[in-house]
Amino acid sequence: MCAREPWWPSRYGEGDELGTLNEITPAKVVAAARLVRAGTVYDLGRTLHANVPRFEDRFWQQTLVSSAHIINARRPGSDGGGWGRNNLNWITELVTGTFQIGTQLDGLNHLQIGDRFYNGWRACDIVEQWGTTKLGIEKVPPVVTRGVLVDAARHRGVARMEPGEVITVADVHAALREQHVAVEPGDVLLFHTGWGALWDSDPARFTSGEPGIGMEVAEWLVEQRVAMTGADTWSFGAVPGEDPERPFFVPQTLNVEHGLFIMENLATEALAAAGAYEFMFVLTHHKTRGSTAAVIAPAAVT
Amino acid sequence: MCAREPWWPSRYGEGDELGTLNEITPAKVVAAARLVRAGTVYDLGRTLHANVPRFEDRFWQQTLVSSAHIINARRPGSDGGGWGRNNLNWITELVTGTFQIGTQLDGLNHLQIGDRFYNGWRACDIVEQWGTTKLGIEKVPPVVTRGVLVDAARHRGVARMEPGEVITVADVHAALREQHVAVEPGDVLLFHTGWGALWDSDPARFTSGEPGIGMEVAEWLVEQRVAMTGADTWSFGAVPGEDPERPFFVPQTLNVEHGLFIMENLATEALAAAGAYEFMFVLTHHKTRGSTAAVIAPAAVT
Amino acid sequence: MCAREPWWPSRYGEGDELGTLNEITPAKVVAAARLVRAGTVYDLGRTLHANVPRFEDRFWQQTLVSSAHIINARRPGSDGGGWGRNNLNWITELVTGTFQIGTQLDGLNHLQIGDRFYNGWRACDIVEQWGTTKLGIEKVPPVVTRGVLVDAARHRGVARMEPGEVITVADVHAALREQHVAVEPGDVLLFHTGWGALWDSDPARFTSGEPGIGMEVAEWLVEQRVAMTGADTWSFGAVPGEDPERPFFVPQTLNVEHGLFIMENLATEALAAAGAYEFMFVLTHHKTRGSTAAVIAPAAVT
Amino acid sequence: MCAREPWWPSRYGEGDELGTLNEITPAKVVAAARLVRAGTVYDLGRTLHANVPRFEDRFWQQTLVSSAHIINARRPGSDGGGWGRNNLNWITELVTGTFQIGTQLDGLNHLQIGDRFYNGWRACDIVEQWGTTKLGIEKVPPVVTRGVLVDAARHRGVARMEPGEVITVADVHAALREQHVAVEPGDVLLFHTGWGALWDSDPARFTSGEPGIGMEVAEWLVEQRVAMTGADTWSFGAVPGEDPERPFFVPQTLNVEHGLFIMENLATEALAAAGAYEFMFVLTHHKTRGSTAAVIAPAAVT
Repeated sequence: MCAREPWWPSRYGEGDELGTLNEITPAKVVAAARLVRAGTVYDLGRTLHANVPRFEDRFWQQTLVSSAHIINARRPGSDGGGWGRNNLNWITELVTGTFQIGTQLDGLNHLQIGDRFYNGWRACDIVEQWGTTKLGIEKVPPVVTRGVLVDAARHRGVARMEPGEVITVADVHAALREQHVAVEPGDVLLFHTGWGALWDSDPARFTSGEPGIGMEVAEWLVEQRVAMTGADTWSFGAVPGEDPERPFFVPQTLNVEHGLFIMENLATEALAAAGAYEFMFVLTHHKTRGSTAAVIAPAAVT
Repeated sequence: MCAREPWWPSRYGEGDELGTLNEITPAKVVAAARLVRAGTVYDLGRTLHANVPRFEDRFWQQTLVSSAHIINARRPGSDGGGWGRNNLNWITELVTGTFQIGTQLDGLNHLQIGDRFYNGWRACDIVEQWGTTKLGIEKVPPVVTRGVLVDAARHRGVARMEPGEVITVADVHAALREQHVAVEPGDVLLFHTGWGALWDSDPARFTSGEPGIGMEVAEWLVEQRVAMTGADTWSFGAVPGEDPERPFFVPQTLNVEHGLFIMENLATEALAAAGAYEFMFVLTHHKTRGSTAAVIAPAAVT
Repeated sequence: MCAREPWWPSRYGEGDELGTLNEITPAKVVAAARLVRAGTVYDLGRTLHANVPRFEDRFWQQTLVSSAHIINARRPGSDGGGWGRNNLNWITELVTGTFQIGTQLDGLNHLQIGDRFYNGWRACDIVEQWGTTKLGIEKVPPVVTRGVLVDAARHRGVARMEPGEVITVADVHAALREQHVAVEPGDVLLFHTGWGALWDSDPARFTSGEPGIGMEVAEWLVEQRVAMTGADTWSFGAVPGEDPERPFFVPQTLNVEHGLFIMENLATEALAAAGAYEFMFVLTHHKTRGSTAAVIAPAAVT
Repeated sequence: MCAREPWWPSRYGEGDELGTLNEITPAKVVAAARLVRAGTVYDLGRTLHANVPRFEDRFWQQTLVSSAHIINARRPGSDGGGWGRNNLNWITELVTGTFQIGTQLDGLNHLQIGDRFYNGWRACDIVEQWGTTKLGIEKVPPVVTRGVLVDAARHRGVARMEPGEVITVADVHAALREQHVAVEPGDVLLFHTGWGALWDSDPARFTSGEPGIGMEVAEWLVEQRVAMTGADTWSFGAVPGEDPERPFFVPQTLNVEHGLFIMENLATEALAAAGAYEFMFVLTHHKTRGSTAAVIAPAAVT
């Protein structure tokens, strides 16, 4: 096994795999449900297909397979139109690709500092060819908690922020004040930058960069003890970043050092348009063993 | 295109793709949230991996891909341990297989009567190689509504019902009476048969048959206007079925004729053990375009 | 099984799966070997990668998987750099896609007239989800026979023929005369149109159409009893074809009615440039069960 | 890029990617063709399917896709039975898995000593996610040369040698003497151990070990300047090996230090049964960019 090396235990203790999801208490779940008054459900996911904005080696392909052309050969009892007197046919899909695409939740087994994951696990400790033995996406439980949206674009007075434009703590405080909402421990804090409008209209530009938070807000998120965060961008944090020599420093720090979960490519525009800044956030996802992400479509319920 | 042929419009109108999910109103969502009192979240999904119970041509494979071995070649700035001064590395997965495996929600584009899908669409109307243009799983919105569990095994006084054992309407009425809970329109009605206990312990036996409802309960579910149903079995409905010449007649009828959504391989044992018969049911899933199913892990919240 | 319907037996008898490869006799193999005088080997295959000219639903993806990042976890005896004292590491690939891409040999289970394959087999007779039980590419034996190249572009006095430009029997006779070579039963007859020059330079134009033979030459090929044919184009036969209402009529007729094998996207330019019109043709390929094609790189040896 | 470190250039020079295939000269090709007298073609490949003997993370899956169920939707001109007046339909396959399975040729980019490949290239020099930029299987040209079979089982007087049983140089000399054949530079030297008989009859036992050469014969093969080697076993060299602390030391040494190509899982039984010890060996394969192996079915022609 790996040579043991010193490591600081995470805030949630050595051996913890839940990270900031530990902040969600039963009381928090109950309080979140109390926020549901209109019965309106907002879908925060984008549909995934082969041509969504992506990087060259992150692909998604689906091919349908019909039983119709083989049903007779396989089912002697058939009258030709399907299986049995009820004429049963079915269609299935064959998919291939990565979960690091589309609207996604990254597992804590995705990013590393060197070969370190959250809580000090090393690749040689947990990585198998079929997946990781720790921190896989199946370790993430269903999430029901309070959600808050920070409309950073609205605060900046623009429809869409610019690539590399950094959201500061002052921005967040001001935006929350304007929205008459406060952040509490265990919340899911989402950011609307307007960048998502390019998802369909200009995929190449969409992936060329993005606005987002800087390290100051990253540290603040940890202090606030938020349970999860995310934005309408393909990564999380401004790209290009504050320090050109530290690529993707924001998500790396949040995932690996703090165990803070991040969601990418969220469809936040409807929430922003409706001014729905506080809601019950719900997320359930595919529990595929050892995966580094889940393709998701969480919901905000008001 | 297809030759047009007569077809009865569904209860929800010609062109409808939501089926029984139309039964979930905003008032229903609000009422469901009111059921959350303890803040306990039950995970109804089973972890998916290559060796779960499956049929030969339904497979799931995942392989991890590490950036570590290529980071230097691709990132000249790297010091060897990762990209940039922050020593960034990442791991992704490559998955391949079908969503018709594990804990799943079937789309209304999965089963057919002959070449007919729900609302009379034919394969030649909606099937493309990349997916279906109608009724794909991405058309299913996030689900938040009241959930009810029928513990059929408890009513029968057994830990696990037998393959082919049929749950009757009388059973359902009696079980609901014993559980002091009633079914309402827009509910998600789940069945616990105990069969799921074989998921890990005896995969071959698990897929060899199953207990479940018969056509009588199927029609009753439609009358009750339930929004979704499901069980701790790999299909839905007793296998072998009531009519050996009509294989999978229950799910075929519910999906195609009535647009009633079905979930399979649910992990209902914790709910049953806790006697949690009424709850807020939440389901969000991967919106992959034109897929015939979603691999899911819905939650029951009390 | 399928309803039986009348069908003409193929020239090689009912139940035959070898089609025109029956024309290759041991004497033909010996004679082909006798053609080798210079010891020059021409590679007729193009390298396959994700970005070769292709149609939307015909894709090819490869991802490398390194043992290096998991070797320690899986091999306790390792010193960290690899497995064992010999420090063993390895890399493998995961591929996904279709064999109907790149330089390929189509099986007789690829094209159909209605639901008929060569020798009258129907889809319901031979198609399973994992492959076909008859006519799969694994039924094609290693091929060693005489090869002849028809340089149609040279005969027309152009570097590259035009899309839809049809090669006639008169063209073939004249070209063979100019090249001082004749066609014999059991030969592999290849056509050079110059179209292949667009493979790398203009993939979109390459797949937009192609020059090739018409039905007259197709019938002539059958009369000549050639064992295989092929060209430097993505299909075989002019596109657009002679009859706009009969798409891909040439390969459909050759494959289904006559069992004549066709190779696509051959790299014929080196042969043409060298004036190598007669050679020993050799082809061995991946025997993947029930596949509809093989990705190949045959050789011409002079 | 990688830190440069000292390395011995290979026998064929720094930067060489052909390894021992450099031993095959035009004269050698001509001489090989002269060996063809009977016109008998032996197929040395085994059919690949999902259930061949394999290791857990080396899989092969194929699913057929029929155009029949989508032809109408996609081809308005169709009469329902296919596309156009010629009623065209087609079937394609979708494959997924690794080429490190079945009868295969390993590329020199498969095995490493630490992170070194043949000629000193390191993973960080040539490994990209899509494949390797050097030593990929597409760099292997078509092979036509003299082939020789060593029937080691016959020499030992057994039908099938035992796992871990080591073939010595004395064995090879004696066997060749008994077979009245000698080895020459540029030959492909194949070994028949009889182990291949377990391929279909007992897959689990087949992969549990194997007979094969030891390091003595490995070094002798290099001295003899053979162009390629291979056997009827899943790896090459006895397993368990001579030195339990040096797993797979034979293929690692031949590939990495000497650039000697190895074929696995060859179907040698027909050659052995026929006493065909000398032949023209031909191999053409799929030129998939950057792959670590090719699934092959080479031929021996007498």
